[in-house]
Amino acid sequence: MRWALFRSSEGRHGFGVVQDSHIVEYEGDFFAAPRPTGRRIAQDVVTLLSPCEPSKIVALWNNFHALSLKLGKAPPGHPLFLIKPGTSVIGPRQAIARPSGYTGKIAYEGELGIVIGKACKDVTVAAAADHVFGYTCVNDVTAADILNENADFAQWCRSKGFDTFCGIGPFIATNFDWARARVVTRLDGVERQNYPLSDMIMTPQELVSRISHDMTLLPGDVIACGTSLGVGSIKDGSAVDVYVEGIGSLVNELSPVSR
Amino acid sequence: MRWALFRSSEGRHGFGVVQDSHIVEYEGDFFAAPRPTGRRIAQDVVTLLSPCEPSKIVALWNNFHALSLKLGKAPPGHPLFLIKPGTSVIGPRQAIARPSGYTGKIAYEGELGIVIGKACKDVTVAAAADHVFGYTCVNDVTAADILNENADFAQWCRSKGFDTFCGIGPFIATNFDWARARVVTRLDGVERQNYPLSDMIMTPQELVSRISHDMTLLPGDVIACGTSLGVGSIKDGSAVDVYVEGIGSLVNELSPVSR
Repeated sequence: MRWALFRSSEGRHGFGVVQDSHIVEYEGDFFAAPRPTGRRIAQDVVTLLSPCEPSKIVALWNNFHALSLKLGKAPPGHPLFLIKPGTSVIGPRQAIARPSGYTGKIAYEGELGIVIGKACKDVTVAAAADHVFGYTCVNDVTAADILNENADFAQWCRSKGFDTFCGIGPFIATNFDWARARVVTRLDGVERQNYPLSDMIMTPQELVSRISHDMTLLPGDVIACGTSLGVGSIKDGSAVDVYVEGIGSLVNELSPVSR
Repeated sequence: MRWALFRSSEGRHGFGVVQDSHIVEYEGDFFAAPRPTGRRIAQDVVTLLSPCEPSKIVALWNNFHALSLKLGKAPPGHPLFLIKPGTSVIGPRQAIARPSGYTGKIAYEGELGIVIGKACKDVTVAAAADHVFGYTCVNDVTAADILNENADFAQWCRSKGFDTFCGIGPFIATNFDWARARVVTRLDGVERQNYPLSDMIMTPQELVSRISHDMTLLPGDVIACGTSLGVGSIKDGSAVDVYVEGIGSLVNELSPVSR
């Protein structure tokens, strides 16, 4: 099943299960046995939102063998991560905004996102799957020139934490077999990334378990699994499409400075 | 005025203004003209909670001249920060929990915390004060051995993001003159830090303005202004007291591993 969050043309927020070009609406607690409302809504009359509202996004660095080999970095023994704030989240088709006053390089990173379904702390690898609601696509956007601007302190949170710098969506897929899937990122229609999720250094179950030993993960929180080869920069006006078969296509355009 | 959040002995959550040994209770929106309830409650019959519930804590590194001199680091041109998640917050007298499986050094850092009162993005230095609700004490706790455990990636968010690693309180002081105040940190009653806030590299107004250009700050969010000389390690069972005159004394004990 693929779940969507949406805003109707009248401004009402709702959620439901995607069925072809429609959404079968549900109500209640998204993470705890919601009930169908009986409504069936055409996707093209609603605005899709980020399918979850994370209190935090735990974003991994160096979690794919191919990229770690290229960078000449050893595979880490524990997930290496930064935190992107909830204020950085945008949904499908929402624009990535260039930070005011920043004229430098802005990079895309197509990634798999794990969406937490149940609060968890110190869970085992075996119990991890039970705390995952599903999987989504993430565009982990970076103001690349800021990252190493200061020689004493790598600015991971700042360069990746700007409002609109975390695309999530379009849907959350449950019963998703990540091990057989690939992340395909296209920039203005041209393929730039196409890597197998089976190349992950730490699997989603290991990530959830280990990160849950570092902090409590809450329903809706997202672990962005890190990216692999093919990261590049987005020109103003260009569109990035992060596609995972079984989840969908997350498209976000970089809008030029409006100020 | 000094504001407190509390849980009553019956489990009810409330907030109000501290008056000697009592709390004059208010109701409504904490950040938007709350009204007095007429109730006056003795402080010693309630449990004080963290006086705010931040969606994120923006924690500064290298923001005091004395410490930057000691570390031999240049004063930064823009705030250098990491993000501590909301799940790391504890209130006065709540225990700091040693992470399961971690036997290394745990460090205290006494700091001033700025509590945001109004959502803000891209605000000027002149407009910043209008978006500040008040000031509080912060104990920015760190699992110090984790920070540089991996040679390729400084783990700021992980080492400082554990549950219970962000003490906040006991109160939020409004109309607080930070420029005349000092942060005094005592470990088991022995003074370890005593530094003037006037030594800050970037003032609270500059911090709010600049960080609001990096991300939207929400009501209740906290900027931890960074620490100065005298940081040290906490033994299991020891208590850290972060005191700022005009705000109060934030005491948290490090509880030994219970697992």
